[in-house]
Amino acid sequence: MGEQLTTTLAALADPTRRAILDRLATGPASVKELAAPFQISLPAISRHLKVLERAGLIARGREAQWRPCRLEAGPLEEVAGWVEKHRRFWS
Amino acid sequence: MGEQLTTTLAALADPTRRAILDRLATGPASVKELAAPFQISLPAISRHLKVLERAGLIARGREAQWRPCRLEAGPLEEVAGWVEKHRRFWS
Repeated sequence: MGEQLTTTLAALADPTRRAILDRLATGPASVKELAAPFQISLPAISRHLKVLERAGLIARGREAQWRPCRLEAGPLEEVAGWVEKHRRFWS
Repeated sequence: MGEQLTTTLAALADPTRRAILDRLATGPASVKELAAPFQISLPAISRHLKVLERAGLIARGREAQWRPCRLEAGPLEEVAGWVEKHRRFWS
């Protein structure tokens, strides 16, 4: 129970992974494009993408040369739903 | 940048800690009261409470005998703010 939510929150608990999702919110992007703003290696970006993909937060295209990543919002909706339960405590 | 948000999301990435926050949303509670619904030891609950306290998600009373825990919603508001940015992807 709540396993998906736990996986999602763990995936989001990293500033680079959140920045990748913010970038994908502007449209699909290749791994190279996603890596460009960061001072980290392509393999490190690939590891972050795998975490996001396992959490269902991104999906990858099947085109052989250019496998664009895109945002998948379902898990984010679950996070919003959980947090919203407690909205009355801050608004 | 985003360090508080990272700490908050890591603290939330655990079903027991989320259940503790859900319980505290109904009102302050002692450690013993918080432990009651779980099949885990008081020391294990205390460790979870320390993680939540470090993340600013709960605060503890200073009464010597009964140090009630209460929900602190500031960090949750920050999570909601980040997730809301992407709301258009699911609604």
